[in-house]
Parts: sequence; structure tokens; C-alpha cells
Amino acid sequence: MTHVLILGAAGMIGARLAMRIAENGTIGGQPVDRLTLADVVEPEAPAIAAAPAALPIETFAADISDPETAERLVCLKPDIIVHLAAIVSGEAEEDFDKGYRVNLEGTLRLLEALRAARHVPRLVFASSIAVYGAPYPERITDEHHLTPLTSYGTQKAICELLIADYSRKGYVDAVGLRLPTIVVRPGKPNKAASGFFSSIIREPLNGEVATLPVPTTVRHWMASPRAAVSFLERAATMDTQPLEGRRNLTMPGISVTVQEQIDTLRELAGQQRVKLIRYQPDERITAIVAGWPRDFNTFRARSLGFAPDRSFTDIVRTYATEEGIRL
Amino acid sequence: MTHVLILGAAGMIGARLAMRIAENGTIGGQPVDRLTLADVVEPEAPAIAAAPAALPIETFAADISDPETAERLVCLKPDIIVHLAAIVSGEAEEDFDKGYRVNLEGTLRLLEALRAARHVPRLVFASSIAVYGAPYPERITDEHHLTPLTSYGTQKAICELLIADYSRKGYVDAVGLRLPTIVVRPGKPNKAASGFFSSIIREPLNGEVATLPVPTTVRHWMASPRAAVSFLERAATMDTQPLEGRRNLTMPGISVTVQEQIDTLRELAGQQRVKLIRYQPDERITAIVAGWPRDFNTFRARSLGFAPDRSFTDIVRTYATEEGIRL
Ligand SMILES: NC(=O)c1ccc[n+]([C@@H]2O[C@H](COP(=O)([O-])OP(=O)(O)OC[C@H]3O[C@@H](n4cnc5c(N)ncnc54)[C@H](O)[C@@H]3O)[C@@H](O)[C@H]2O)c1
Ligand SMILES: NC(=O)c1ccc[n+]([C@@H]2O[C@H](COP(=O)([O-])OP(=O)(O)OC[C@H]3O[C@@H](n4cnc5c(N)ncnc54)[C@H](O)[C@@H]3O)[C@@H](O)[C@H]2O)c1
Repeated sequence: MTHVLILGAAGMIGARLAMRIAENGTIGGQPVDRLTLADVVEPEAPAIAAAPAALPIETFAADISDPETAERLVCLKPDIIVHLAAIVSGEAEEDFDKGYRVNLEGTLRLLEALRAARHVPRLVFASSIAVYGAPYPERITDEHHLTPLTSYGTQKAICELLIADYSRKGYVDAVGLRLPTIVVRPGKPNKAASGFFSSIIREPLNGEVATLPVPTTVRHWMASPRAAVSFLERAATMDTQPLEGRRNLTMPGISVTVQEQIDTLRELAGQQRVKLIRYQPDERITAIVAGWPRDFNTFRARSLGFAPDRSFTDIVRTYATEEGIRL
Repeated sequence: MTHVLILGAAGMIGARLAMRIAENGTIGGQPVDRLTLADVVEPEAPAIAAAPAALPIETFAADISDPETAERLVCLKPDIIVHLAAIVSGEAEEDFDKGYRVNLEGTLRLLEALRAARHVPRLVFASSIAVYGAPYPERITDEHHLTPLTSYGTQKAICELLIADYSRKGYVDAVGLRLPTIVVRPGKPNKAASGFFSSIIREPLNGEVATLPVPTTVRHWMASPRAAVSFLERAATMDTQPLEGRRNLTMPGISVTVQEQIDTLRELAGQQRVKLIRYQPDERITAIVAGWPRDFNTFRARSLGFAPDRSFTDIVRTYATEEGIRL
């Protein structure tokens, strides 16, 4: 039977994964008999109508940058660890120390605790397409070099190298997933430079004004929260033999322009909603976004069974359904 | 005026660089007025006939994995740090802890000490083509991804990411050089899997028997110790602006087969010497070597003024001259 530990379980993706496991009593089709949720802020147990009776859920407040946390969590002998805990891009850039402490040292401590305990679980690590840096070809291949342009991207790229080496040595059985930018991110607008990709859909659907800081020609690589959860489930349960030592995979997304996003909004919710998007050019954000990947060829991940969203229309429909918004 | 600190100054490359700086009183043409040599074993000051009177040389025994070392060395406010201190490939693979402690933590401590002291020297970091892992194209380009197959290669790749991020933030002004395999390595045979590339030349020139563990069709990427020193000098003094944030460069080498090595030996020293090479196939070494790069397109480094050896003949001639061997 399977004990799953989610680190960063109070976050946007972590909470969804926890919910899904609690609802189904499985991860990637595999029965789960224990679920542990940890985050620096104590996660709430998923509030579901009918939890499978047999699935005990524990929640922990645990800071992964604290020297004792990893040891404590590894003692629980989880079979699958989904490691989502991170300081995200903007904050890691502003607070250099904190970014390295959480994103690099936190992961390293976890790996070291596993090695010391000689406990070898499946580890799913959430990496990011921020490991790539401009200039790149129009479509980035699986063999393109990693030249991150942020501390966040650097920390993710380093963790990718670490999980590959620790896996090669047999200390862990890890898979790293370079997640696309997750759109539509539910909840309040945040200060991430990428926030507008979500807010130009989310805010108008809520009847609120959204600001678009970049030209509509901007193209970017996106996946839905639902797709992200399905990637994590697959990585948690896949056979890692076919990875042949290359433990990190760029996840399939869809390559969408802001214009296509807006057209989809118009199609599904009407021109009145589109009018709520105000174009306010922001040179700083436009410059940042110019350094982001636009499109990938994710041959490896696809051949290993990772499937992208079908369309941006599909992403918006699912978002609306999940949030109880009628289109 | 310029104060140069060499870390790993007792090593093969470090000692040569120290000697060259002491002889010329310059590094990359730039006058040096102070030279500090550090290594875990106290380095000897270069024994040169006529040292430029004005160049004081200090030597230190210092373990870079010791928490206090970096701070102590940074206090000396060197203008240029050439960081060569490392646990090499074979040992880092056998002693996982030691490899990470010296090659990763040691470098990280140095970067952190610089950041804390707000002292921003040029840092030249010796990386390696071990950051690459098979499979690769026949000629590896500057945009090829890093998938190291050893802990040593992983540690070097991580340090490359770190020096790039610390440089981007303005905490250091670093250049990382992926050195080719250095051939002909002087001195005693060592246990490195790559040792035979040197020993099949060095031992016969000394009238001794050498063992060749791989077929003569094996092709590899090589540079002379003299070229390595010239790369370090250039990196120590170059304008880093044109690097445009990509701080790590694959150094130009020459792509040579074992057969070409042997032909060169025959040409320069005769068939009698070649007869001292005994082919003793070793499956383990052949398998390791099969994972090594064979050839590179080093466009970036060449356009930045890094020049390779002219030929393998040239490499052997220089080796013989330096070692006082008559061909
Ligand atoms: N959302 C995206 O677009 C996206 C894209 C690529 C990669 N990712 C990665 O996926 C993962 C999850 O993303 P998300 O969107 O759910 O982010 P999120 O910010 O919503 O969740 C991250 C969680 O980590 C927790 N955390 C932070 N520091 C911690 C610490 N020291 N100890 C324990 N927990 C800590 C936070 O409290 C938060 O709940 C992250 O690793 C992120 O870098 C996200
Ligand atoms: N020689 C090659 O073929 C080659 C190829 C690629 C990269 N490199 C890199 O170039 C650098 C120099 O190579 P080399 O051939 O001169 O190696 P070397 O082994 O001769 O020298 C390395 C030196 O580092 C010192 N050292 C080890 N641990 C230390 C510690 N904790 N604190 C301080 N010093 C320590 C050693 O004592 C040694 O003198 C190394 O970083 C190596 O990884 C070498």
C-alpha cells in the first residue's frame, strides 16, 4: 500500500493534488492508504463530501529549510513524495537568501535525509520552464541547454541536477517535471510577472477589470492546474526505467498567444467581458516576458505518456466549471 | 595593481599557472603585484631562476570545505581568484560526501563569502566537459544540454549555474571554463579512467611500458597543460561584457583518436617507442569512455579569443621540451 507525502500542500497545485487523492483514494490509479500534507503554513485537509473511509490524512506545519524538518518527514517513510514547496519566482529574486535557503538547501536537505535513512521513495520534483533562458529557438527541444535568467530558475536547475545524481546513485527514485506556466490560476491576482496570463481571463469572468501589460502578440507555454495535477500523478507512479538516467522532463503545454487567449474569452463569454481587459503597456514586464520560452517540442514527455491540455478553450471551460462560473 | 589568488595551487594546472605568473610578473598580460597560493596541501612557491623582484608570493594550507577558509581568503581582497581546487572525477564518484563537500559546498562557501564581504573580484572557475553526458551528437554545440553522468560532472554543472547567478546579481564577476581532458599530463600515472590518453605518450617517451585499455578508434577532446594555462589567463583578464550572462564556456580542444595519438608518437619518437604500448582491452574503462564527448564546436569561446592547441604533434613536442626529453 502507498503512503503519499505532499510538500507544499497548502499551495495552489498541492491543495488540488491533495483534493484529488482524497476524492479518488488513488494517485495515478494506484491505491493510497495514507496521505500526509506538509507546508510552512499548516495545510487544511481537503474538504470533500465523501472521503474514502480508509484514507487517513495528517497535516503538518513544516518548514523545509529548517534543518530538522527533512529528517522528521523521512521518518514517516512515505512511498511517494511530491515536492512542491518553493519560494516562487518574484520572491526568490527579491530575497536571494530565502530563495536559496528554501529552493536549494530545502531540497538538498530532503535528499540528504533520504540518503542517511537509506529510504528510497519515488520523489516527484516540481521544476519549471524558468530553467530556460533567452535566446532560444522558436521551439525548444529536449536537448536545449539550461541557462536560467533568475535565481528561481537557477535553483530549480540545480535541484534537477541533484535529483538526477541522487537517483543515479540509488538514493532516491526521482522525476523532475518542468511545469509550464499554470493558467488559469484561481484566486486573487498575485504579483508574479506572469500573473496577467491568468488575470486577463479570471478577472473578466468575474466581471472585474484586468490589466494587460504586454502586446497581444506575446506567445507563451501554458498548462491548466488540472493538467499539472495529472502530470504529478503520472510521475508519481510511472516506470522510471525508460528515463535512462535523464530524470527531468519538460511537460507538454500549449503554446498560446495573448490574442488567442482574448479570442477564446470572446468566444466563450462575449465581447462585453473582453472589454474589461485594459491594455496598459509596462516596459519592465514586457522585457521580462521577452526572456520567456514561447514553445517547446516535448517529444520525450509525450512518448512517456504525459498529455497536454487539448486547447485553450478547454482550459477556460474547465476553469469556469471548477469555479462554478456559467459561460 | 593586481592581486591573484589561486585555489588548488598545488595541483597540476595550478602549479603551472603559478609558475607562469611568477616568471612573467603578469597574468594575461596584466601586471601582477601579489600572488597568493592556497591548497589543502600547502603549495610550494614556484622555483624560478629570476623572479621579478617586486612580486611577493604567499602560500597557504587551506581546505576550501572548511567553513572558515573562504572568509579568510576573501579578507585578502584578491582581484582575481582562479578556483582550481577540486576532488577529481574518480574520487568524487567513490566518496560521495567528500565530492559534494569540496566541489559543491566549497565553491558555494566561496561565493557566499564574497557576497557577504561585498568584494567583487574576477573569478575563474575550472569546470569540465564532464558536465556533458551521452547520448550526444558527434559534435556538441554551445547550446547542448548538460546531463552529467557522474557526481563530479554534476557538481561542476551546479557550480556553473551558481557562478552565473551570482554574477548576474553582481556578487562576483565570474567565468567558467569547461576544460578538455588535459594531455599529456606530466608525472606518475594516476588512476583516472582518462589516464591512458596521457600514459600512452608519457610512458613510452620515458622508455616505459604503457597499457591501452580501449580500441584505437576511440576519439576524445584534448588540450595541453599549456593551453589550459592560457585559457585561465585569458578568462582572468577578458572583458566579461560580451558573455551576455552566459558565463560558462566550453574550451577549444582538439578532437583526436587514439590511433592519431599513436601515429604522432611514431612520427616523433619512432616505432620502438610505439611498441611499448600494450593493448589490454578493459571493458569497464571502454564502457566509461564510450560515455565521453568526442568532439565540440566551440564557436563561442573561439570568437572570444580562446585558441586551441595547433595539433597533437605540437602537444607532444611541447611536453617533451618541458620535460627535457629529446625527440
Ligand atoms: N504555478 C505555476 O505556474 C508553476 C510553474 C512552474 C513550476 N511551479 C512549481 O510548482 C510548485 C507549486 O507551485 P504553486 O503554483 O502551487 O505554488 P504556491 O506558491 O501556490 O505553493 C508553494 C507552497 O510552498 C510552500 N512553501 C514555501 N516555503 C516553504 C518552506 N520553507 N517549507 C514548506 N513549504 C513551503 C508555500 O507555503 C506554498 O503553499 C512550486 O515548486 C513551483 O515552483 C509552479
Ligand atoms: N586535468 C584535467 O584533465 C582537467 C579537466 C577538466 C577540468 N579540470 C579541473 O581543473 C582543476 C585543476 O585540475 P588539475 O588537473 O590541476 O587537478 P589536481 O588534482 O592536480 O589539482 C587539484 C588541486 O585541488 C586541491 N584540493 C582538493 N581538495 C581541496 C580542498 N578541500 N581545499 C583546497 N584544495 C583542495 C588538491 O590538493 C589539488 O592540488 C580542477 O578543478 C579539475 O576538476 C581538470
